[in-house]
Formats: sequence, structure tokens, C-alpha cells
Amino acid sequence: MKAIQLNSRPVGVPQLSDFKLVTEEQPKIKAGEMLLKASYLSVDPYLRGRMMEGKSYIAPFELNETMSSGMIAEVVESNLEGFSKGDFVSGMLEWKEYQASKGEELMKVDGQRAPLSSYLGVLGMTGLTAYLGLTEIGKPKAGETVVVSGAAGAVGSVVGQIAKALGCRVVGIAGSDEKVEELKSNYGFDAGINYKTTENMTKAIAEACPEGVDVYFDNVGGEISDGVMMNVNQFARVIVCGAISMYNATSMPMGPRLDSILIKNSVLKQGFIVFNYAEKYGEAMSHIAKWLQEGKLKSTETIVEGFENTPQAFIDLFEGKNKGKMIVKI
Amino acid sequence: MKAIQLNSRPVGVPQLSDFKLVTEEQPKIKAGEMLLKASYLSVDPYLRGRMMEGKSYIAPFELNETMSSGMIAEVVESNLEGFSKGDFVSGMLEWKEYQASKGEELMKVDGQRAPLSSYLGVLGMTGLTAYLGLTEIGKPKAGETVVVSGAAGAVGSVVGQIAKALGCRVVGIAGSDEKVEELKSNYGFDAGINYKTTENMTKAIAEACPEGVDVYFDNVGGEISDGVMMNVNQFARVIVCGAISMYNATSMPMGPRLDSILIKNSVLKQGFIVFNYAEKYGEAMSHIAKWLQEGKLKSTETIVEGFENTPQAFIDLFEGKNKGKMIVKI
Repeated sequence: MKAIQLNSRPVGVPQLSDFKLVTEEQPKIKAGEMLLKASYLSVDPYLRGRMMEGKSYIAPFELNETMSSGMIAEVVESNLEGFSKGDFVSGMLEWKEYQASKGEELMKVDGQRAPLSSYLGVLGMTGLTAYLGLTEIGKPKAGETVVVSGAAGAVGSVVGQIAKALGCRVVGIAGSDEKVEELKSNYGFDAGINYKTTENMTKAIAEACPEGVDVYFDNVGGEISDGVMMNVNQFARVIVCGAISMYNATSMPMGPRLDSILIKNSVLKQGFIVFNYAEKYGEAMSHIAKWLQEGKLKSTETIVEGFENTPQAFIDLFEGKNKGKMIVKI
Repeated sequence: MKAIQLNSRPVGVPQLSDFKLVTEEQPKIKAGEMLLKASYLSVDPYLRGRMMEGKSYIAPFELNETMSSGMIAEVVESNLEGFSKGDFVSGMLEWKEYQASKGEELMKVDGQRAPLSSYLGVLGMTGLTAYLGLTEIGKPKAGETVVVSGAAGAVGSVVGQIAKALGCRVVGIAGSDEKVEELKSNYGFDAGINYKTTENMTKAIAEACPEGVDVYFDNVGGEISDGVMMNVNQFARVIVCGAISMYNATSMPMGPRLDSILIKNSVLKQGFIVFNYAEKYGEAMSHIAKWLQEGKLKSTETIVEGFENTPQAFIDLFEGKNKGKMIVKI
């Protein structure tokens, strides 16, 4: 069976050579274990951080060790009470075709109720991140203007739709005219901005947000965010959920110091990690499930086939090749 | 009588020539008015912002118009119910030796209870800013580490003492060895850093805060703050109260983009303006008065004599020539 290890720590944009596809013997399970066969694998921008050394909220990957991320797997053999052959589970798993597990921190998922891959997306961490970041930090009120960067991505597209469901005016920033069109036609955004063809982001945001920006859900950071920050209203809330524009930087990225804007407008800016809000997962999921049923929430996935294509799928995130959630089908 | 007007909008550090001392006729009061004679005048860094054009939380000063700030004045004549000759009032007043007033948004102050000048300092906006910024945004818990920049200044020195009263470890950053010594000996700070003689602020903060930084009360911004931010703990709170290091910048100040630090550590960073917390003034004052009585809060003032020296006193703020609150005695 195959596994994927960290071969080298990336410098700048991750390369295929930073990963290593290895062959290992298929594990045998003991009492109290089950054998899992990987079905779907989530690649996420935050994994870039785990490829580096250094203290963070989650341990770094070690060189020549198997990587891991959110995955869906099938139980193919079980010596573990509560899990039977044919069950599917979701959780943080290793990038291996097969692995033994004691079931810790795994959740059973129901492929009849929703497509299995959606438990990595809108019914998984993606949906929870969007809902909890927006509501716990952003606290949007009906009629307010919400701006989302990385708006065509996994989290961003869900954020925008939830903000619409909450009665906000929603403006999305994405990296192609096609994506911008999709924000409006598919997800119901009120306006969209293609940052790649926009010369003056400050002006573009001002035009798209005639009443200013009340909530900014930031997945990208950098100059795009500077333009948004130049248009914030008094008491604006900024959810710093991601900074994909900087994850591959080889030196400290520099930018304007915007403290005076925070002061003048009494802005709240807060870093967001979904794992800190575990006690709210249930509440979040009930809202998400309801909106899905009502058709207010559409989920888009970019599915890449083949376990060995995982590294390329991950690298493609940084060029925005995904629409919605990027998932590898194994 | 004399008045001080805005003569030109400063470029960079304010100059004496940006102000104009003019002679005006002493006003005569009508029914429902009182005549006020200026006693004390507060100069504050935030006034630098009002000298510029542009939208902010408070209207800019107009060219060739009288400036204003927090002042204490004596009632020398009154046609206004509730105010008698000999009373003293505190509030936002014009930089004039005498002015007519309808008493709007003025508060009577008692020079018997506390020195009149203290109503511009620890018993006024300074104390309210320190208490409310620290407690409403910083929410320090006993045992946590609180870092204060501009620590020997009006707000900073009070913040540090309140944090001590709340049971925190307190580290102050100031601009001379003498000030650092005073932080420790007079105000009870646990440690102090002279940023002018410190080469590596990140390392200095790390050494002064072996358990990391939980709350950062920022009055200065810039590189000093970068060093603090490199040492924040998970769930740190940053009160962005001032950015005096940038107020005189003639181009957009640049610095490292620290969004990844906000994300990794789930940091909350919030701009603070005391006027937004008016409903808490009473509660804040009762705490401050209690700590003053108990001797837990010492108030330092730098008193400059003479109305005509107001512009120089203001300019001196940017070189840190004040200890504690800078006040002009008229």
C-alpha cells in the first residue's frame, strides 16, 4: 500500500519533490483496533504551516514521516466495539491507503444522508469554520455589508452564503472573472471583485460597498486585505481566518501599518481557529444542515482522483485552481 | 485675551508655526450662559489626528479656527442655573483664556476633593481610557502578563498600576532609563524596557516576559509593538489605544504583516476609543477613586505654566518629554 511522507520542508511554493510517495506493508489490526481504508482526503491551505518547523496551534509534520489531514475512511475490518465493517468515519487521519485505528476522535458519517465527501466540506471543518468564524467573531447583523476574500474557495463560498442567509449584503473577492461570475450566479453574492484584474483594490471595494464594510472574513491577507481595511466602518469586525497570500513567503511580508485605522474606527480584528470552538459544533451543524435542506447553501467540490495526486492537489490550492472544497478521491 | 488657532496643517512633527496665538475680545455672556476662565488644559497625542483633514471619530480642527481639548475652567460669571461664580468645570473647551458656555457636556469638579488638574488625568479621560481599555478589551486575569507601551506616559502609567492592582505581572516599555526606573520604583511595574537602548525588542520582551504576553496595551505602535507581538500567547488581547510613533509619519508607515501571528495564537486586537464606553464611566471612576484612596494608584503630572506654552507642550509629547499626564496651567 502507498503512503505520502514529508520529504523536505518547502521553501516558497511547495514542490512535488517536498513530498515522497512510499510503499509500506498493510497494517494488521490488534484487539481494540479497526482497519481503515482511505476514501476521501482533504487538502487545506493551513497544512502549509504544518510543513514548517516551529511552535503553532498544531504540531508540525516531521521529515520522513507520514502527513495527515481531514479524511473519510471505510472500516474494512473491525475488532473495535461500535465500529463495523462497511461503516465510514471522518477525522484527522494519516495519508495512507490503509491504517489501523483505535477510533479516537473519529466520527461515524452517513453516506446515505449526504455525499461522503461533504463531511470534509460543508458538513465538516469547512462549514464549521465558515459558520463559527462569521457568527462568533463577525456577528453580522441583517443589512450590514460583509466582504469575503478567497470567496470562491471552500470556506469563502460558504461564508458568503451564510451571510446572505443572515440578511447581509455580501461582496466576494476571487481570482478570475469566471469565479466572480459564479459567486453571483451560483452563491447569490451581491457583488464580486476579480483581484487579479483590479488595479486599485481600495477603490474597487469602495465601489462595491457604498455603505462601507462592517464585517471582513479574511482568508488571504496581503494587499487584498489592505484595500478592504481602507473601507471599514466604525465597529467593523475582521475575522483573520487565513493568510494564503503569505503562506509561501520566503521573507517576512511587509505592508502598511494599519493601527490608526483600527483606532479611528474601533475595529475588532481576531485570529480564528475552528478547533477553539468545539463546544459550538453541534449548534453550528444544525444551522448548516437546515440551510442545506432549504437550498440556501450550495456546496461545491473540486474532486481530484487518485491518492498519488494528493501533493499536486495541495499545491494547486495556492494557485486557486480549486472551486469550493478541494478533495482527493482515493 | 488670548486664543490659540490652527495656523497650518502639520507635515511630520508639528512645529510652533502650525499654531497661531491671537488676541480676541473677551466674550460677553447672554442669558443662559456663563463666562469661563481657563485654569488647566490637557494636551494629548490624539490631537495630532485632529490637526489633519479627513473623516475620523472626531471632527478635524479647521484652519484659522480655535483649537480645543479637555480643560478645567473656573466660572467667573454666570447667568446659567446650576453653575455659580467660583465653580470649576471640566470638559472639551476651546483654547481661549475666556469663553462663554451654555454648560453643555460640562461636569462640575471639586477642587477640595482632588487637585483640579487630576480631573484631566487619572480622574478624567486618562484614567477612564486606562481602566476601560484594559478591562473591556484586555480582560486581564490575575497571574497573566500585561505589557504596556508608552508606559511612563499619562495612560500607560495608569494602565500598569491598574494591572498590578488586578494581580497581573506588568512589564512597561518607555524611552529612557530614568523612566524605566520610575516604572518600577514609583508605579510598581515588575520590569521595564528602555526601547531607545534596546536593539532587539523581540528578545527583550521574551526575557522580560518568560511566560509570554497575555495582554498588550499599545500606545505607540511601530517596531516596539512588533517585538511584543512576536511574544504573544494563545488568546492574547491587544488594546490598540494609540500609535504615537506613527502620528507624524509623512508617508504610510510600513511593517511586517503579522496576520499569521494573529491566526496561530487566536489573538484579539481591537482599536479603543474611550468615548464609545460612556455608559461605563461611572463604574470605572468608582474603581479608580477606590484605588487612589488605597494608595494603589499614583498619578504623575508634568505641568507646564502659561497658556502661550500650549503648542510647545503638545509638541513635547512626541519626544516623550512628559512624565505621566502633560497639562498646561493657565
